[in-house]
Amino acid sequence: MATLRQDGSPANRTVVFRGFVDPAAAPVLSASGHTLGHHSLKLVTDGRSEKMDQLAGRTEVCWYFTKTREQFRLAGQLHAVAPTDPLHAQSWKALSATAQSQFGWPHPGKPRAGDEAFSVTVDPETPAATFTVLLLVPDWVDHLMLRGEPQQRWRYQRQDEPPRTDQHEGHNWTIQAINP
Amino acid sequence: MATLRQDGSPANRTVVFRGFVDPAAAPVLSASGHTLGHHSLKLVTDGRSEKMDQLAGRTEVCWYFTKTREQFRLAGQLHAVAPTDPLHAQSWKALSATAQSQFGWPHPGKPRAGDEAFSVTVDPETPAATFTVLLLVPDWVDHLMLRGEPQQRWRYQRQDEPPRTDQHEGHNWTIQAINP
Repeated sequence: MATLRQDGSPANRTVVFRGFVDPAAAPVLSASGHTLGHHSLKLVTDGRSEKMDQLAGRTEVCWYFTKTREQFRLAGQLHAVAPTDPLHAQSWKALSATAQSQFGWPHPGKPRAGDEAFSVTVDPETPAATFTVLLLVPDWVDHLMLRGEPQQRWRYQRQDEPPRTDQHEGHNWTIQAINP
Repeated sequence: MATLRQDGSPANRTVVFRGFVDPAAAPVLSASGHTLGHHSLKLVTDGRSEKMDQLAGRTEVCWYFTKTREQFRLAGQLHAVAPTDPLHAQSWKALSATAQSQFGWPHPGKPRAGDEAFSVTVDPETPAATFTVLLLVPDWVDHLMLRGEPQQRWRYQRQDEPPRTDQHEGHNWTIQAINP
Protein backbone atom coordinates (compact mmCIF):
# COMPACT_ATOMS: atom_id res chain seq x y z
CA MET A 1 0.00 0.00 0.00
CA ALA A 2 1.53 3.24 -1.17
CA THR A 3 0.76 6.56 0.49
CA LEU A 4 2.30 9.99 0.25
CA ARG A 5 4.76 11.28 2.85
CA GLN A 6 4.50 14.93 3.80
CA ASP A 7 7.79 15.59 1.98
CA GLY A 8 6.12 14.39 -1.23
CA SER A 9 7.85 11.01 -1.47
CA PRO A 10 5.89 7.79 -1.78
CA ALA A 11 5.83 5.38 1.19
CA ASN A 12 5.18 1.72 0.48
CA ARG A 13 4.52 -1.18 2.82
CA THR A 14 2.75 -4.52 3.11
CA VAL A 15 -0.54 -4.51 4.99
CA VAL A 16 -2.95 -7.26 6.02
CA PHE A 17 -6.33 -7.10 4.28
CA ARG A 18 -9.00 -7.47 6.99
CA GLY A 19 -11.92 -7.92 4.63
CA PHE A 20 -14.55 -5.68 3.09
CA VAL A 21 -16.98 -3.72 5.21
CA ASP A 22 -20.10 -5.83 5.78
CA PRO A 23 -22.73 -4.65 3.24
CA ALA A 24 -25.50 -5.56 5.71
CA ALA A 25 -24.16 -3.17 8.35
CA ALA A 26 -24.92 0.52 8.68
CA PRO A 27 -22.57 2.99 6.94
CA VAL A 28 -19.34 3.63 8.83
CA LEU A 29 -18.45 6.98 10.40
CA SER A 30 -14.91 8.22 9.83
CA ALA A 31 -12.86 10.03 12.47
CA SER A 32 -13.19 13.23 10.41
CA GLY A 33 -16.98 12.92 10.13
CA HIS A 34 -17.35 11.31 6.71
CA THR A 35 -19.92 8.61 6.07
CA LEU A 36 -18.21 5.71 4.35
CA GLY A 37 -19.92 3.16 2.14
CA HIS A 38 -19.52 -0.58 2.08
CA HIS A 39 -17.32 -1.05 -0.92
CA SER A 40 -14.21 -0.35 1.06
CA LEU A 41 -11.26 -2.43 2.17
CA LYS A 42 -10.50 -2.74 5.84
CA LEU A 43 -7.12 -2.76 7.52
CA VAL A 44 -5.88 -1.97 10.99
CA THR A 45 -2.86 0.01 12.09
CA ASP A 46 -1.15 1.54 15.08
CA GLY A 47 -2.31 5.14 15.50
CA ARG A 48 1.32 6.13 16.09
CA SER A 49 2.53 4.74 12.74
CA GLU A 50 3.81 7.12 10.10
CA LYS A 51 0.99 6.33 7.69
CA MET A 52 -1.42 8.18 9.99
CA ASP A 53 0.17 11.43 8.79
CA GLN A 54 -0.40 10.31 5.21
CA LEU A 55 -4.18 9.94 5.11
CA ALA A 56 -4.77 13.30 3.41
CA GLY A 57 -3.06 12.29 0.17
CA ARG A 58 -4.25 9.57 -2.14
CA THR A 59 -3.45 5.89 -1.62
CA GLU A 60 -2.79 3.13 -4.12
CA VAL A 61 -2.83 -0.52 -3.21
CA CYS A 62 -1.20 -3.08 -5.49
CA TRP A 63 -2.19 -6.71 -5.05
CA TYR A 64 -0.73 -9.52 -7.11
CA PHE A 65 -2.39 -12.93 -7.03
CA THR A 66 0.29 -15.49 -7.81
CA LYS A 67 -1.99 -18.42 -8.66
CA THR A 68 -4.28 -16.58 -11.06
CA ARG A 69 -1.54 -14.18 -12.23
CA GLU A 70 -3.80 -11.17 -11.76
CA GLN A 71 -2.76 -7.73 -10.57
CA PHE A 72 -5.21 -5.31 -9.00
CA ARG A 73 -4.26 -1.69 -8.46
CA LEU A 74 -6.84 0.12 -6.30
CA ALA A 75 -6.52 3.85 -5.80
CA GLY A 76 -8.60 6.08 -3.60
CA GLN A 77 -8.85 7.72 -0.24
CA LEU A 78 -7.88 6.23 3.09
CA HIS A 79 -10.01 7.07 6.14
CA ALA A 80 -9.60 6.35 9.84
CA VAL A 81 -12.78 4.94 11.40
CA ALA A 82 -14.20 6.90 14.34
CA PRO A 83 -13.50 5.07 17.63
CA THR A 84 -17.20 5.53 18.43
CA ASP A 85 -18.30 3.55 15.37
CA PRO A 86 -19.26 -0.06 16.20
CA LEU A 87 -16.80 -1.26 13.55
CA HIS A 88 -13.93 -0.06 15.75
CA ALA A 89 -14.63 -2.40 18.67
CA GLN A 90 -15.75 -5.23 16.37
CA SER A 91 -12.44 -5.07 14.51
CA TRP A 92 -10.50 -5.14 17.78
CA LYS A 93 -12.29 -8.25 19.01
CA ALA A 94 -11.68 -9.96 15.67
CA LEU A 95 -7.90 -9.75 16.18
CA SER A 96 -5.86 -12.62 17.58
CA ALA A 97 -4.29 -12.14 21.02
CA THR A 98 -0.89 -11.85 19.34
CA ALA A 99 -2.11 -9.12 17.00
CA GLN A 100 -3.80 -7.29 19.89
CA SER A 101 -0.63 -7.32 22.01
CA GLN A 102 1.30 -5.44 19.31
CA PHE A 103 -0.80 -2.36 20.05
CA GLY A 104 0.84 -2.21 23.48
CA TRP A 105 4.35 -2.20 22.02
CA PRO A 106 6.59 0.89 22.03
CA HIS A 107 6.17 3.61 19.40
CA PRO A 108 6.65 1.98 15.95
CA GLY A 109 9.61 3.29 13.95
CA LYS A 110 11.29 4.99 16.93
CA PRO A 111 14.77 3.93 18.06
CA ARG A 112 14.62 0.68 19.95
CA ALA A 113 15.43 0.76 23.66
CA GLY A 114 15.26 -2.91 24.60
CA ASP A 115 13.07 -5.97 24.73
CA GLU A 116 11.41 -5.39 28.12
CA ALA A 117 8.94 -2.87 26.75
CA PHE A 118 7.44 -5.52 24.47
CA SER A 119 6.07 -7.57 27.38
CA VAL A 120 2.70 -5.95 27.79
CA THR A 121 -0.85 -7.07 28.27
CA VAL A 122 -3.86 -5.52 26.58
CA ASP A 123 -7.55 -5.99 27.31
CA PRO A 124 -8.99 -8.42 24.73
CA GLU A 125 -12.42 -6.77 25.05
CA THR A 126 -11.46 -3.08 24.94
CA PRO A 127 -9.59 -1.56 21.99
CA ALA A 128 -6.15 -0.22 22.88
CA ALA A 129 -5.83 3.55 22.60
CA THR A 130 -3.36 3.05 19.74
CA PHE A 131 -5.71 0.79 17.79
CA THR A 132 -6.95 2.30 14.52
CA VAL A 133 -9.17 0.90 11.78
CA LEU A 134 -8.54 2.24 8.29
CA LEU A 135 -10.86 2.00 5.29
CA LEU A 136 -9.67 2.39 1.74
CA VAL A 137 -12.46 3.74 -0.46
CA PRO A 138 -11.34 3.07 -4.02
CA ASP A 139 -12.44 5.17 -6.98
CA TRP A 140 -10.01 3.78 -9.59
CA VAL A 141 -9.05 0.19 -10.34
CA ASP A 142 -6.54 -1.22 -12.82
CA HIS A 143 -7.02 -4.96 -13.35
CA LEU A 144 -4.36 -6.86 -15.28
CA MET A 145 -4.68 -10.54 -16.18
CA LEU A 146 -1.37 -12.00 -17.27
CA ARG A 147 -2.95 -15.33 -18.19
CA GLY A 148 -4.02 -15.64 -21.79
CA GLU A 149 -2.51 -14.56 -25.07
CA PRO A 150 -2.56 -11.61 -25.35
CA GLN A 151 -3.03 -10.43 -21.77
CA GLN A 152 -6.18 -8.59 -20.67
CA ARG A 153 -6.32 -5.31 -18.80
CA TRP A 154 -9.24 -3.17 -17.65
CA ARG A 155 -9.53 0.24 -16.11
CA TYR A 156 -12.49 0.99 -13.78
CA GLN A 157 -13.33 4.52 -12.71
CA ARG A 158 -15.94 5.64 -10.23
CA GLN A 159 -18.20 8.42 -11.48
CA ASP A 160 -18.40 11.55 -9.40
CA GLU A 161 -22.17 12.02 -9.22
CA PRO A 162 -23.49 11.82 -5.65
CA PRO A 163 -24.88 8.50 -4.43
CA ARG A 164 -28.62 8.03 -4.83
CA THR A 165 -30.50 8.87 -1.66
CA ASP A 166 -32.18 5.49 -1.43
CA GLN A 167 -28.96 3.51 -1.19
CA HIS A 168 -25.46 3.91 0.17
CA GLU A 169 -23.73 2.55 -2.90
CA GLY A 170 -25.15 4.68 -5.66
CA HIS A 171 -21.92 5.38 -7.53
CA ASN A 172 -21.64 4.26 -11.10
CA TRP A 173 -18.40 2.98 -12.53
CA THR A 174 -17.06 3.06 -16.06
CA ILE A 175 -15.06 0.17 -17.45
CA GLN A 176 -12.65 0.30 -20.35
CA ALA A 177 -10.43 -2.33 -21.96
CA ILE A 178 -6.88 -0.96 -22.20
CA ASN A 179 -3.62 -2.30 -23.57
CA PRO A 180 -1.62 -4.44 -21.11
CA MET B 1 7.07 -0.35 -6.64
CA ALA B 2 5.58 3.02 -5.76
CA THR B 3 6.37 6.18 -7.70
CA LEU B 4 4.86 9.63 -7.78
CA ARG B 5 2.41 10.71 -10.48
CA GLN B 6 2.71 14.25 -11.77
CA ASP B 7 -0.57 15.09 -10.01
CA GLY B 8 1.10 14.18 -6.70
CA SER B 9 -0.67 10.86 -6.16
CA PRO B 10 1.25 7.64 -5.56
CA ALA B 11 1.29 4.99 -8.30
CA ASN B 12 1.90 1.40 -7.26
CA ARG B 13 2.53 -1.72 -9.32
CA THR B 14 4.27 -5.08 -9.33
CA VAL B 15 7.56 -5.28 -11.20
CA VAL B 16 9.94 -8.13 -11.97
CA PHE B 17 13.31 -7.86 -10.25
CA ARG B 18 15.98 -8.50 -12.92
CA GLY B 19 18.91 -8.76 -10.52
CA PHE B 20 21.56 -6.43 -9.21
CA VAL B 21 24.01 -4.68 -11.50
CA ASP B 22 27.11 -6.87 -11.87
CA PRO B 23 29.75 -5.47 -9.46
CA ALA B 24 32.50 -6.64 -11.83
CA ALA B 25 31.19 -4.48 -14.69
CA ALA B 26 31.99 -0.82 -15.32
CA PRO B 27 29.65 1.80 -13.82
CA VAL B 28 26.43 2.30 -15.76
CA LEU B 29 25.58 5.51 -17.64
CA SER B 30 22.06 6.82 -17.17
CA ALA B 31 20.03 8.41 -19.96
CA SER B 32 20.39 11.76 -18.18
CA GLY B 33 24.17 11.46 -17.91
CA HIS B 34 24.54 10.15 -14.34
CA THR B 35 27.07 7.49 -13.47
CA LEU B 36 25.34 4.78 -11.49
CA GLY B 37 27.02 2.40 -9.06
CA HIS B 38 26.60 -1.30 -8.65
CA HIS B 39 24.38 -1.50 -5.60
CA SER B 40 21.27 -0.93 -7.64
CA LEU B 41 18.30 -3.06 -8.59
CA LYS B 42 17.54 -3.70 -12.22
CA LEU B 43 14.15 -3.84 -13.87
CA VAL B 44 12.92 -3.35 -17.41
CA THR B 45 9.92 -1.45 -18.68
CA ASP B 46 8.23 -0.17 -21.80
CA GLY B 47 9.43 3.37 -22.53
CA ARG B 48 5.81 4.34 -23.21
CA SER B 49 4.59 3.26 -19.77
CA GLU B 50 3.34 5.88 -17.32
CA LYS B 51 6.15 5.28 -14.87
CA MET B 52 8.58 6.90 -17.33
CA ASP B 53 7.01 10.27 -16.42
CA GLN B 54 7.57 9.47 -12.75
CA LEU B 55 11.34 9.08 -12.61
CA ALA B 56 11.96 12.56 -11.22
CA GLY B 57 10.24 11.86 -7.90
CA ARG B 58 11.41 9.35 -5.36
CA THR B 59 10.57 5.65 -5.56
CA GLU B 60 9.88 3.13 -2.81
CA VAL B 61 9.89 -0.60 -3.39
CA CYS B 62 8.23 -2.93 -0.88
CA TRP B 63 9.18 -6.58 -1.00
CA TYR B 64 7.70 -9.20 1.29
CA PHE B 65 9.34 -12.61 1.52
CA THR B 66 6.65 -15.07 2.52
CA LYS B 67 8.90 -17.92 3.64
CA THR B 68 11.21 -15.90 5.85
CA ARG B 69 8.48 -13.38 6.80
CA GLU B 70 10.76 -10.45 6.07
CA GLN B 71 9.76 -7.12 4.58
CA PHE B 72 12.23 -4.86 2.81
CA ARG B 73 11.31 -1.30 1.94
CA LEU B 74 13.90 0.27 -0.37
CA ALA B 75 13.63 3.95 -1.21
CA GLY B 76 15.74 5.95 -3.60
CA GLN B 77 16.00 7.29 -7.09
CA LEU B 78 15.01 5.52 -10.27
CA HIS B 79 17.15 6.06 -13.39
CA ALA B 80 16.72 5.01 -17.01
CA VAL B 81 19.87 3.44 -18.44
CA ALA B 82 21.33 5.11 -21.55
CA PRO B 83 20.60 2.99 -24.66
CA THR B 84 24.31 3.35 -25.49
CA ASP B 85 25.38 1.65 -22.26
CA PRO B 86 26.32 -2.03 -22.77
CA LEU B 87 23.85 -2.98 -20.02
CA HIS B 88 20.99 -1.96 -22.32
CA ALA B 89 21.67 -4.55 -25.03
CA GLN B 90 22.78 -7.17 -22.48
CA SER B 91 19.47 -6.81 -20.64
CA TRP B 92 17.51 -7.16 -23.89
CA LYS B 93 19.28 -10.38 -24.84
CA ALA B 94 18.65 -11.79 -21.36
CA LEU B 95 14.87 -11.58 -21.89
CA SER B 96 12.80 -14.55 -23.03
CA ALA B 97 11.24 -14.37 -26.50
CA THR B 98 7.84 -13.89 -24.85
CA ALA B 99 9.09 -10.98 -22.78
CA GLN B 100 10.79 -9.42 -25.81
CA SER B 101 7.63 -9.62 -27.92
CA GLN B 102 5.71 -7.48 -25.40
CA PHE B 103 7.83 -4.49 -26.42
CA GLY B 104 6.20 -4.65 -29.84
CA TRP B 105 2.69 -4.47 -28.39
CA PRO B 106 0.48 -1.37 -28.67
CA HIS B 107 0.94 1.57 -26.30
CA PRO B 108 0.44 0.26 -22.71
CA GLY B 109 -2.51 1.79 -20.86
CA LYS B 110 -4.15 3.23 -23.98
CA PRO B 111 -7.66 2.09 -25.00
CA ARG B 112 -7.54 -1.33 -26.59
CA ALA B 113 -8.36 -1.57 -30.27
CA GLY B 114 -8.23 -5.31 -30.90
CA ASP B 115 -6.07 -8.39 -30.76
CA GLU B 116 -4.40 -8.14 -34.19
CA ALA B 117 -1.90 -5.51 -33.06
CA PHE B 118 -0.43 -7.97 -30.54
CA SER B 119 0.92 -10.30 -33.25
CA VAL B 120 4.32 -8.75 -33.81
CA THR B 121 7.86 -9.95 -34.18
CA VAL B 122 10.87 -8.28 -32.64
CA ASP B 123 14.57 -8.82 -33.33
CA PRO B 124 15.99 -11.03 -30.55
CA GLU B 125 19.44 -9.45 -31.00
CA THR B 126 18.49 -5.76 -31.22
CA PRO B 127 16.64 -3.98 -28.40
CA ALA B 128 13.22 -2.69 -29.42
CA ALA B 129 12.93 1.11 -29.46
CA THR B 130 10.45 0.89 -26.58
CA PHE B 131 12.77 -1.21 -24.42
CA THR B 132 14.02 0.58 -21.31
CA VAL B 133 16.23 -0.60 -18.45
CA LEU B 134 15.62 1.07 -15.10
CA LEU B 135 17.94 1.06 -12.09
CA LEU B 136 16.76 1.80 -8.58
CA VAL B 137 19.57 3.30 -6.52
CA PRO B 138 18.44 2.96 -2.91
CA ASP B 139 19.57 5.31 -0.15
CA TRP B 140 17.12 4.18 2.57
CA VAL B 141 16.13 0.68 3.64
CA ASP B 142 13.61 -0.47 6.24
CA HIS B 143 14.05 -4.15 7.10
CA LEU B 144 11.36 -5.85 9.20
CA MET B 145 11.66 -9.44 10.42
CA LEU B 146 8.33 -10.76 11.63
CA ARG B 147 9.89 -14.00 12.87
CA GLY B 148 10.95 -13.97 16.49
CA GLU B 149 9.46 -12.58 19.64
CA PRO B 150 9.53 -9.61 19.64
CA GLN B 151 10.01 -8.78 15.97
CA GLN B 152 13.18 -7.09 14.72
CA ARG B 153 13.36 -3.99 12.55
CA TRP B 154 16.29 -2.01 11.25
CA ARG B 155 16.64 1.26 9.38
CA TYR B 156 19.57 1.76 6.99
CA GLN B 157 20.46 5.18 5.61
CA ARG B 158 23.09 6.05 3.06
CA GLN B 159 25.37 8.89 4.03
CA ASP B 160 25.61 11.82 1.66
CA GLU B 161 29.37 12.25 1.43
CA PRO B 162 30.67 11.72 -2.10
CA PRO B 163 32.06 8.30 -3.02
CA ARG B 164 35.80 7.83 -2.61
CA THR B 165 37.66 8.36 -5.85
CA ASP B 166 39.35 4.94 -5.75
CA GLN B 167 36.10 2.97 -5.80
CA HIS B 168 32.60 3.33 -7.18
CA GLU B 169 30.84 2.22 -4.01
CA GLY B 170 32.31 4.56 -1.43
CA HIS B 171 29.06 5.48 0.35
CA ASN B 172 28.78 4.68 4.02
CA TRP B 173 25.51 3.58 5.56
CA THR B 174 24.18 3.98 9.08
CA ILE B 175 22.16 1.25 10.73
CA GLN B 176 19.73 1.68 13.60
CA ALA B 177 17.49 -0.78 15.44
CA ILE B 178 13.96 0.63 15.55
CA ASN B 179 10.68 -0.54 17.04
CA PRO B 180 8.65 -2.86 14.79
